[in-house]
Amino acid sequence: MTEVVALAKELILRPSVTPDDAGCQMLIAKRLQRAGFACEHLRFGEVDNLWATHGSGAPVLVLLGHTDVVPPGPREAWNSDPFVPEIRDGMLYGRGAADMKGSVAAFVVALERFVAAHPRHSGTVALLLTSDEEGEAIDGVRRVADTFRTRGQKIDWCITGEPSSTAKLGDLLRVGRRGTLSATLTVKGIQGHVAYPEKARNPVHQAMPALTELVAHRWDDGYESFPPTSLQVSNVHAGTGANNVIPGELQVLFNLRYNPHWQAEQLERQCESVLRAHALEYTIHWHRGGEPFHTPEGPLRSAAREVLTRLAGAVPQESTSGGTSDARFIAPLGAQCVEIGPVNASIHKVDEHVAVADLEALPDLYQALIERLLP
Amino acid sequence: MTEVVALAKELILRPSVTPDDAGCQMLIAKRLQRAGFACEHLRFGEVDNLWATHGSGAPVLVLLGHTDVVPPGPREAWNSDPFVPEIRDGMLYGRGAADMKGSVAAFVVALERFVAAHPRHSGTVALLLTSDEEGEAIDGVRRVADTFRTRGQKIDWCITGEPSSTAKLGDLLRVGRRGTLSATLTVKGIQGHVAYPEKARNPVHQAMPALTELVAHRWDDGYESFPPTSLQVSNVHAGTGANNVIPGELQVLFNLRYNPHWQAEQLERQCESVLRAHALEYTIHWHRGGEPFHTPEGPLRSAAREVLTRLAGAVPQESTSGGTSDARFIAPLGAQCVEIGPVNASIHKVDEHVAVADLEALPDLYQALIERLLP
Ligand SMILES: [Zn+2]
Ligand SMILES: [Zn+2]
Repeated sequence: MTEVVALAKELILRPSVTPDDAGCQMLIAKRLQRAGFACEHLRFGEVDNLWATHGSGAPVLVLLGHTDVVPPGPREAWNSDPFVPEIRDGMLYGRGAADMKGSVAAFVVALERFVAAHPRHSGTVALLLTSDEEGEAIDGVRRVADTFRTRGQKIDWCITGEPSSTAKLGDLLRVGRRGTLSATLTVKGIQGHVAYPEKARNPVHQAMPALTELVAHRWDDGYESFPPTSLQVSNVHAGTGANNVIPGELQVLFNLRYNPHWQAEQLERQCESVLRAHALEYTIHWHRGGEPFHTPEGPLRSAAREVLTRLAGAVPQESTSGGTSDARFIAPLGAQCVEIGPVNASIHKVDEHVAVADLEALPDLYQALIERLLP
Repeated sequence: MTEVVALAKELILRPSVTPDDAGCQMLIAKRLQRAGFACEHLRFGEVDNLWATHGSGAPVLVLLGHTDVVPPGPREAWNSDPFVPEIRDGMLYGRGAADMKGSVAAFVVALERFVAAHPRHSGTVALLLTSDEEGEAIDGVRRVADTFRTRGQKIDWCITGEPSSTAKLGDLLRVGRRGTLSATLTVKGIQGHVAYPEKARNPVHQAMPALTELVAHRWDDGYESFPPTSLQVSNVHAGTGANNVIPGELQVLFNLRYNPHWQAEQLERQCESVLRAHALEYTIHWHRGGEPFHTPEGPLRSAAREVLTRLAGAVPQESTSGGTSDARFIAPLGAQCVEIGPVNASIHKVDEHVAVADLEALPDLYQALIERLLP
């Protein structure tokens, strides 16, 4: 068994459902300390974060990952225990195999080999791990980034190991992510009996035209490599089940995924102007889940493209699609960020897996990138 | 204490929350048997129904009532125990005082006096009571009406004691009720992640324009003394709370209150044509809660108008507004129906009450009506 597969298995064995790190970071810290890294454990609330550095000064290259995993769901749904790694037909199965204990294991092996080969490399190479990427993402990289801001810790480049590949390892290079903005909207009406509509005010009836307008609105046609900004209603709730009562209140949750054309505040203003134009009596709570980020052409993006092209034998698609990642917290520090990781088809699902061959290719890939950026 | 107040108190003492009759009907049956009535207990499922008759043949006049009450809610919210009748400042307090143990007590006293005074009256006078008016209304008067249909039992006139008065006893004569039609609509979409709207189909987004059209639709401008037909959305539910998931399904409950201009089936057809015009993938379950009924000018309505005018000193408003009552099940037997009862301001609320003076006026009112219809 190769070193990276052995370490990935050790990590999968630890049932680190968010925010429980279950000892993953301690294991990694011990290895990296032996390799000469300075390791700092930054625990906030229930969340473990590990900050391991080698070298000093600029440029600073950070490998970013998480040790937490999403819950596996019922054991019976899996073909093998989600927390007992198992190789079948060339695939390593287990919760986190693809998202992202495989990448984390590859980071560690790549870092060990890199500093062994180049003990006096230029700048700083670092590993940042959190145990709160899949959860609230409050006490994880968000808090670490605050600490960096306070300390004046600069970051030039950041490579996240999130599973970015779609059909084949290295077919996609993520060079940005949309921002996410969530709203909890409460529309107030006047409760009453359905037989006396004139004595009530139905908040569902009142809100419907406004919501129809909001979801039909075309925000933009995309921005550089970003898809169009999109608003999706995720939850609507009104009524207590009785069919003879006009509800007094409607609650709507919606979420915007937006490109760097927008500031969150502009979107908030525009949504509220629609609500006001429809004369709704409402309260709204906004949650800015993460600003968009975008890494333009530059040393990181071109190095990544070259390494992926050599590995996969084809130029990768450069994309900004998908959900959010912790890169949203590192990018605002002024860092250029890319995401490179294994195939994401099975993540967050039962029988999550990574191809052993892909996993074994990852350390070389990450090491080649580090070498190119910190010669 | 007058006879009617004493009986109303005895009934209130019995905590007959739907469908539990709590002995009310047995108490009444014993009294009416002593007065010469033939009493039949029709129990369906958990529901008690009492059918008491005096005389024979046509015309048949039925006094219709219910012994069940809605739950009182928390005891602390009441000034006195909802199941311990108490007179304060000329008001009798207790759950059911107005809806409708007061009217039921008045029915019993009126019937006793009527048959004592007119032992050989023409036709049949009857009392029909159920313990399932406030609940599902499945095993109550609906089932009794089926039995009547099977037996060939005719009913010419029906007087319900539902609390119809608004400000003052006798100010309103209810001569009809709207029909009620309920729908449970499920709109199917394709669940997905909000970051990938192109891979999902948001059922909330899809349904919104159709629902906007449905609730904005003007069905009619009313019909004779009926208010316009009205559609009200009572419940909408989609999503499981997570703000990053596009829900796979939207559930909407709505209810139509409609006048005799419509058959339920026409309304169903028209709603579904709107849903189909918007190309929704949906399932819908219709529940016909009761056809509308309307009592045109005739012996019952004119007798009721006259008696109320004499009692209240003013011609009553003749109305078809309000919710539903068990008259919806009796009217389809070919009966003319009216509703005459006490002031309804406190029904279904805490500190439900009826004015003692109004309660004491009711037996005379009902007796006068019976005498006029069965001379
Ligand atoms: Zn991940
Ligand atoms: Zn009632």
